[in-house]
Amino acid sequence: MPKNITDHSNLCLHTMTTKPWSLREAIDGYEKAGVPGITVWRQHLEPYGPEEAGKMLRGSGLHVVSLCRGGFFPADTAEGRQANIDDNRKAVDEAVAIGAPLIVLVCGAVPGMPLVEGRKQILDGIAKVLPYAAAANVKLAIEPLHPMYADSRSAVNTLAQANDMVEALASPFLGVTVDVYHLWWDPDLANQIARAGNTIFSFHLCDWRTPTRDILNDRGLMGEGCINLREIRGWVEAQGFSGYDEVEIFSTEYWAGDQAAFVERIKAAYLKHC
Amino acid sequence: MPKNITDHSNLCLHTMTTKPWSLREAIDGYEKAGVPGITVWRQHLEPYGPEEAGKMLRGSGLHVVSLCRGGFFPADTAEGRQANIDDNRKAVDEAVAIGAPLIVLVCGAVPGMPLVEGRKQILDGIAKVLPYAAAANVKLAIEPLHPMYADSRSAVNTLAQANDMVEALASPFLGVTVDVYHLWWDPDLANQIARAGNTIFSFHLCDWRTPTRDILNDRGLMGEGCINLREIRGWVEAQGFSGYDEVEIFSTEYWAGDQAAFVERIKAAYLKHC
Repeated sequence: MPKNITDHSNLCLHTMTTKPWSLREAIDGYEKAGVPGITVWRQHLEPYGPEEAGKMLRGSGLHVVSLCRGGFFPADTAEGRQANIDDNRKAVDEAVAIGAPLIVLVCGAVPGMPLVEGRKQILDGIAKVLPYAAAANVKLAIEPLHPMYADSRSAVNTLAQANDMVEALASPFLGVTVDVYHLWWDPDLANQIARAGNTIFSFHLCDWRTPTRDILNDRGLMGEGCINLREIRGWVEAQGFSGYDEVEIFSTEYWAGDQAAFVERIKAAYLKHC
Repeated sequence: MPKNITDHSNLCLHTMTTKPWSLREAIDGYEKAGVPGITVWRQHLEPYGPEEAGKMLRGSGLHVVSLCRGGFFPADTAEGRQANIDDNRKAVDEAVAIGAPLIVLVCGAVPGMPLVEGRKQILDGIAKVLPYAAAANVKLAIEPLHPMYADSRSAVNTLAQANDMVEALASPFLGVTVDVYHLWWDPDLANQIARAGNTIFSFHLCDWRTPTRDILNDRGLMGEGCINLREIRGWVEAQGFSGYDEVEIFSTEYWAGDQAAFVERIKAAYLKHC
């Protein structure tokens, strides 16, 4: 097991974790709470535009950890695939504007498209965006999504697949995101984290509730569920990962409550359970 | 691709597919509809008891394909684990009583128990039930469940894991169930089906709806979703599998409607999409 977490110096929140907050409110709220890291979702960036958002973030004391999310490569037509690649290049521009060194890729899936075809289109899409990202000094991280999202959100559903893609494209600008929610069940997880090694670019935390009441928006606060959070953190850190611990919780229940109080609960749960 | 299905001679329904029907109603309904196979769930058997249920089934023209479900081996205490093993032996007795040649195992999981421990307890539990099943000439099939059930229903979440267990215990009475709902997303599925070979004891059909509105009871009728049903059937049949095509749909939506009409919809969907 890794050593215990004793302070919040390595904590990062995703703006989607406090979805009701605007980017302005999130910046202010995280700073007030002493949370040093922020991962910005594009929907929170959009109302301000990347330039204005970049000014706000640079004017804060926060460290921008990543931009979420690029990806969604597969499409039924060549035009659709090109539009998706263009949108990923736009995400690179946004990352530059807000000072995010990394874009997390939710790779996409089209219901009814054979997974083999979707996976091929994903690899092709990443290959086409990668030079643009590298030229901008922005890294890309493939985030494998839980198999329950294979129909419509990502055809990349295991860390093994993400590792295969990273090895196939072999660029210092391409790595993986390890998200405990998506990967905890995998009997091969420890091995695949070791295989990923120094290509682990980011690490996402939350928990798996029993029962899970909604397939999208019922993630648990750390400690509310069954995920072996500390053990997985140990595996990741054993590979030399020293980035932020990013809390990414989609929860209709928590979004309905007071967000500042929720941030305090996250801080406590982080110390106790991660 | 396998050859098209042109009649219902290989069709089997799970009594849970028509959950509102009693076993009596299911027997009569399937016979009237010309569905030759039935897989009996223990909750449908329970009101009659195994002897009476056995008489009803032998008095019908139906072929009993399997008993669902054994398993649920892990428990926090030795007493709990023994109670689970005893319950599986009881299931063997029930299978004998109703003439079911096979019990499908949903292997179980305890929220918060490390998956590695759960998996160990599952292998141990199967090993303890297997001689009793073999002596009764009843086979056991490990059914890997979708990773979204790893918290509380099964710590066996890939066909690779089930194959490992079958190889470890090496008995002609132990095999696997291939259920498209649980396995369709797996990038290694074709390989693992080939590896399972003649240890494929049963084959379950339904579809994956987009969106999935409920994690348990929103399975789709074949053709309503994105699963490559025919391709997977081809992989299974290429291994020499010639058992029934079992339709297992848990659906709050379909359970709320007329069950005889639902059976007719299943028959049509089976010919069109499987």
